[in-house]
Amino acid sequence: MPIIHAMLTIKSLTHDYTVEEFTSLGAALTSIAGGDRAFYLVDRRLAELHITELDPIIPAERVVYVDATEPNKSFERLTPVFLQLLQGGLKRDGVIVVLGGGVLQDIGCFIASVLFRGVRWELVPTTLLAQADSCIGSKSSINIGPYKNQIGTFYPPNRVLLPVGVLATLPRDEIRSGMGEVIKLQLLAGEDGFRELMRDMQDFHGQASILSKWVARSAAVKQPYIEADEFDRGIRNILNYGHTFGHAYESATHYEIPHGIAVILGMLTATFLSTRLGLAPASHYAELKTLLAPWHQPFGIHLQKVSRDDIFQAIKQDKKNTGQTVNCILTRGFGRMEKRPVELELDIMPAVNIFIENEITVA
Amino acid sequence: MPIIHAMLTIKSLTHDYTVEEFTSLGAALTSIAGGDRAFYLVDRRLAELHITELDPIIPAERVVYVDATEPNKSFERLTPVFLQLLQGGLKRDGVIVVLGGGVLQDIGCFIASVLFRGVRWELVPTTLLAQADSCIGSKSSINIGPYKNQIGTFYPPNRVLLPVGVLATLPRDEIRSGMGEVIKLQLLAGEDGFRELMRDMQDFHGQASILSKWVARSAAVKQPYIEADEFDRGIRNILNYGHTFGHAYESATHYEIPHGIAVILGMLTATFLSTRLGLAPASHYAELKTLLAPWHQPFGIHLQKVSRDDIFQAIKQDKKNTGQTVNCILTRGFGRMEKRPVELELDIMPAVNIFIENEITVA
Repeated sequence: MPIIHAMLTIKSLTHDYTVEEFTSLGAALTSIAGGDRAFYLVDRRLAELHITELDPIIPAERVVYVDATEPNKSFERLTPVFLQLLQGGLKRDGVIVVLGGGVLQDIGCFIASVLFRGVRWELVPTTLLAQADSCIGSKSSINIGPYKNQIGTFYPPNRVLLPVGVLATLPRDEIRSGMGEVIKLQLLAGEDGFRELMRDMQDFHGQASILSKWVARSAAVKQPYIEADEFDRGIRNILNYGHTFGHAYESATHYEIPHGIAVILGMLTATFLSTRLGLAPASHYAELKTLLAPWHQPFGIHLQKVSRDDIFQAIKQDKKNTGQTVNCILTRGFGRMEKRPVELELDIMPAVNIFIENEITVA
Repeated sequence: MPIIHAMLTIKSLTHDYTVEEFTSLGAALTSIAGGDRAFYLVDRRLAELHITELDPIIPAERVVYVDATEPNKSFERLTPVFLQLLQGGLKRDGVIVVLGGGVLQDIGCFIASVLFRGVRWELVPTTLLAQADSCIGSKSSINIGPYKNQIGTFYPPNRVLLPVGVLATLPRDEIRSGMGEVIKLQLLAGEDGFRELMRDMQDFHGQASILSKWVARSAAVKQPYIEADEFDRGIRNILNYGHTFGHAYESATHYEIPHGIAVILGMLTATFLSTRLGLAPASHYAELKTLLAPWHQPFGIHLQKVSRDDIFQAIKQDKKNTGQTVNCILTRGFGRMEKRPVELELDIMPAVNIFIENEITVA
């Protein structure tokens, strides 16, 4: 009998939703209701890795496999997915079950939010990043032309089903990418949580139990922000710590840097900028630089190889930028983040230049 | 000084919004705030018809002209519109101003609802159909492949600005199309309103004053339904009276029948079906058949020319259909509509066959 643990109920203006823990992918899937009204959107690589577990449960006639790539998050590539669901017989009383990481979540959430103007969906996040961060918060992000994540919706799943066992099967860089958001949330929460996390990581060699502990701790930090500001117009902006720079680093390097690792580099940049603007003590930045190095090395090398202009263009295009300045989440130390407009040419460009040239230890 | 009349405030779970009357297009547009953060989506034909009024007001560098056609309501055709707005510099603190009828509203609402996960928009409806019906209710509808209106969002404008004067410039069939929804709303409201409308129509020769009276009366009927059930899961379904058949008639005739006129034919079909199922007295159907004939003739001829199979396929694909039966809004008489599942083969197909063969007077 799989142990099932109802972890949380999240309030949303669309509909409240639950987060539940399951021992395995199979245990999560067998709890899906809906019978032949359930249609599955599944990460193709995940399906291949877990074929023996998934094959007996997922009906071949009601599954669409999707490659979890950024280019697939576009209207052009989503159109055949919509059509397969409609041709397969999905109706407005159906349910879309999404299995995968952040890209599958973006695709599944966007489709569920606009098909029939909103259809029930259940999310089975299978990466650390998706379990610890993106699965709560109701956001989807779609790319258009050269613009990343400029299109999207707020539409939470009706249920989130966390298969804990799957965390033990993840490759190291996928765990590091997820740790980027785990670390960010603990930096937002304050010094104690961050230091406890760093201690746990000293004994870490891939144990699912440690990861699932920090999945739960991450949700506990994130929940009050998203419940207070679901549509990301105020206090929730703080969760973007590291993301203005992180997103730019991802897109300028053509996604050679995994998202969470780009967020770590982005947090270091934001903290470095904060010291230059006189907000954070240099000692705080120096400590983070040392502690977080193992979590991003050697990906910083990609930043040193791309054009600085591409990075600045990407920063300017960030959707949180509303004028000549760029809205950044800066920091005064553990748990003391704040949103500020920062001058691009005067303050951001020199800080990013120095950060990339002198501050990144790549190995 | 243009007379401005703040008609209504509509409650919405996203944001409340106002409906205001203006004497003219120009008067409405000069009340738009936002300066160079305002971008315009304008029906190309409308822009040509009102070029002298619009040209001095709408900035050439921040306008996208769109042809108001059904095929343009697709991801493929919307992509260049999104890109023009982004390349033109629209930011998340901007505003999209939409000028046109139902197609422009669908396109503008969908874009505003998903760009930056929701951006401010203001709607200037320029057809009777859009002013009297679609401008309140927050829905957008987008087509995909062969599936009409299966994709969409609920996202009201922040303001609706009704330019009354434009109603006097509309061609006769566009007025008749709008009257389809005006008639539907009065049939829902009860006998008195419907009879008053029919009396007003006896003296009608295109006066904007009469049309704007019924625009206001239409909003008064519709407002409580959409406020009580914004996401169309219960009582608001009643507003679909005539639409299951109307949508099928539109799509099976490849949109040779204007929407509101298809709704009139759809309401007659639903009423005819209601008499056959023993709900409505035959006399009620006979009266509507006579009174509404001038509002649809000669468009019924298109139904007699297309394949009956295409019509039945379209009825089956209607998104309100959730199983083997089709959910129809039936009627017991004025103001007494109700939702019921109806057997497609046993009840709907014979009724539609007889209706099209024997019940439509085309001239």
